[in-house]
Amino acid sequence: MISKKAAGIAPYTAGEQPRDKKYIKLNTNENPYPPCGKVVSALTGADISRLRLYPDPRSTGLREAAAAKFGLSPENIFCGNGSDEILAFCFQAFFDPFSKDVVFPDVTYSFYPVWCRLFDINYRTLPLKDDFSVDVSGYIAPAYCQGVVIANPNAPTGRALPLMDIERIVSGNPDKAVIVDEAYVDFGAETAIPLIKKYKNLVVVRTFSKSGSLAGMRIGFAAGDKELITALVKIKDSFNSYPVDSLAGAAAVAALSDGEYFDEHVNKVIRTREAFCAAITKAGFTYVPSSANFVFVTHKAVSAETLYRGLKENGVLVRWFDKPRISNYLRISIGTDEEMRICAEMLKKLAGQA
Amino acid sequence: MISKKAAGIAPYTAGEQPRDKKYIKLNTNENPYPPCGKVVSALTGADISRLRLYPDPRSTGLREAAAAKFGLSPENIFCGNGSDEILAFCFQAFFDPFSKDVVFPDVTYSFYPVWCRLFDINYRTLPLKDDFSVDVSGYIAPAYCQGVVIANPNAPTGRALPLMDIERIVSGNPDKAVIVDEAYVDFGAETAIPLIKKYKNLVVVRTFSKSGSLAGMRIGFAAGDKELITALVKIKDSFNSYPVDSLAGAAAVAALSDGEYFDEHVNKVIRTREAFCAAITKAGFTYVPSSANFVFVTHKAVSAETLYRGLKENGVLVRWFDKPRISNYLRISIGTDEEMRICAEMLKKLAGQA
Repeated sequence: MISKKAAGIAPYTAGEQPRDKKYIKLNTNENPYPPCGKVVSALTGADISRLRLYPDPRSTGLREAAAAKFGLSPENIFCGNGSDEILAFCFQAFFDPFSKDVVFPDVTYSFYPVWCRLFDINYRTLPLKDDFSVDVSGYIAPAYCQGVVIANPNAPTGRALPLMDIERIVSGNPDKAVIVDEAYVDFGAETAIPLIKKYKNLVVVRTFSKSGSLAGMRIGFAAGDKELITALVKIKDSFNSYPVDSLAGAAAVAALSDGEYFDEHVNKVIRTREAFCAAITKAGFTYVPSSANFVFVTHKAVSAETLYRGLKENGVLVRWFDKPRISNYLRISIGTDEEMRICAEMLKKLAGQA
Repeated sequence: MISKKAAGIAPYTAGEQPRDKKYIKLNTNENPYPPCGKVVSALTGADISRLRLYPDPRSTGLREAAAAKFGLSPENIFCGNGSDEILAFCFQAFFDPFSKDVVFPDVTYSFYPVWCRLFDINYRTLPLKDDFSVDVSGYIAPAYCQGVVIANPNAPTGRALPLMDIERIVSGNPDKAVIVDEAYVDFGAETAIPLIKKYKNLVVVRTFSKSGSLAGMRIGFAAGDKELITALVKIKDSFNSYPVDSLAGAAAVAALSDGEYFDEHVNKVIRTREAFCAAITKAGFTYVPSSANFVFVTHKAVSAETLYRGLKENGVLVRWFDKPRISNYLRISIGTDEEMRICAEMLKKLAGQA
């Protein structure tokens, strides 16, 4: 009764979402600041009686707003139920099963190999350099490759590629789709969206879950050439006609409309990140330079697992991946100044006991 | 750059969702009545600042509420982004690609063959009888079959199978998954949920979009044996960790909690349906006996296409499927009494011109 796929697949493991205990929650890269006032107005002022009707299946309002913000046409925008759903659709829309390899780094968002397995897409990982930077040369049209996926900045490292390198990868694979996952781009990397007018093979995927403070609403968008967007629409319409609910669409439009609030709070997170990095450096920790709302942290004397458990016991939840190359690192989301002060102090204490 | 799947697939075509012109909208089986007051309170009173956090990936609150309502355990419940997403997950979780056939009627929800094509699942349709009822005997463990999908009541016909017949199909396929799609069950059919305790191969899929008046929020659930639910969770966690947003989950819990409002408005729709059927009968129309919030209507002298276009020109939107066996029928959703009075009058006029 269970399909071979369901029986055999190892799903993605999301960070813990504890319902009971009150943790300082630095494990799923959520924004420590609430959605802006315009989102509050949009949601509390929504006409609930209209929810008896289906949402606009094309999310026209949000596509128009995102297009206007990035100087594109609504035909260049596709909206989905969070960037994870959009990425899943991208894998189906741009990559063939049982065919050549899709290429991405060995250390990156660990959902990419899961989508490959779900959709029977072959993949190959290319090792990051020792400093966790992407070795761009490997991504220039290898013969075995049918497409490329790059998270920029990368997760869980936080390290960004300069736009020039993204462009090298895009221009170096003119007849293959290159997906740039920009979930964290607003925290210090450069977006590839302006390249969309120049390249027909680029799709940039964005989420409102991080810089937009809307993780709870599940909303994101993809930007790309019209032909790629049409393929995404076809896959979506073969899966779920209405993945974006009415309130999520309205919340995202409102979030896009308040650039001032957005800039202020993104900058706040960046400043907190820099202060946190300075604090833990003094305590003997090192970290990967981050352009995201998290930092990838290690200590030469105390194992990441020990630190992870120590933090958790003391009420601070961070993410530890028991995986090759990164099992001695913690991914720590950037919370408020106070949360990060407590986290840094606790790390210092845990390292000092070593 | 486009996958063969995306290039070749013919997606499901949802009913029109006009954004501009004001229609009497009887084309997508929405509820004419708004969500209950408890939904209004849950949504307008929601703590928007919490939306910075991811939703509970397991929708625990809604699973508990649905389980309590139907005398099951939360382990028997799976929540998703509308019943369409849940059905898509079911096809992946219970059926193997490139294998035996999944079986469903020739006239039924036209998304079923689309999911089969999306996931490379072979399927076979069995003809409904001339009166559009399901010929149950064909569904009893045919050798070529790996699973069964039955909409009860069926769409777009509205005709229901008695629970006894559903049980024959479930018990007749003990080692194959039987999916019963109960999107419309509350409007007059009998739910198969009580059979879940008896049969390990039954999954019942429900939506809040119809009787729940929450089409705009995208929320539904599946009920079934724990092992089947676990398979759904694995597929979902390999696609999107958080398909159900926080407000959708809260709205659904609130909708479940107001049985009185629910019964009152479901009964109102049923009474309106019966009055509408009586009115159009007088005008020479015939219809398939409906247990849903829509009626499948035909006229011996005027083609359904003519009626569809005539209604649309006069501001009434209904659904017409240009497909074998049903191209001379209209599927008319049940709106308010006033909307249906107008629709019936217009049908009478259009038929009278013939």
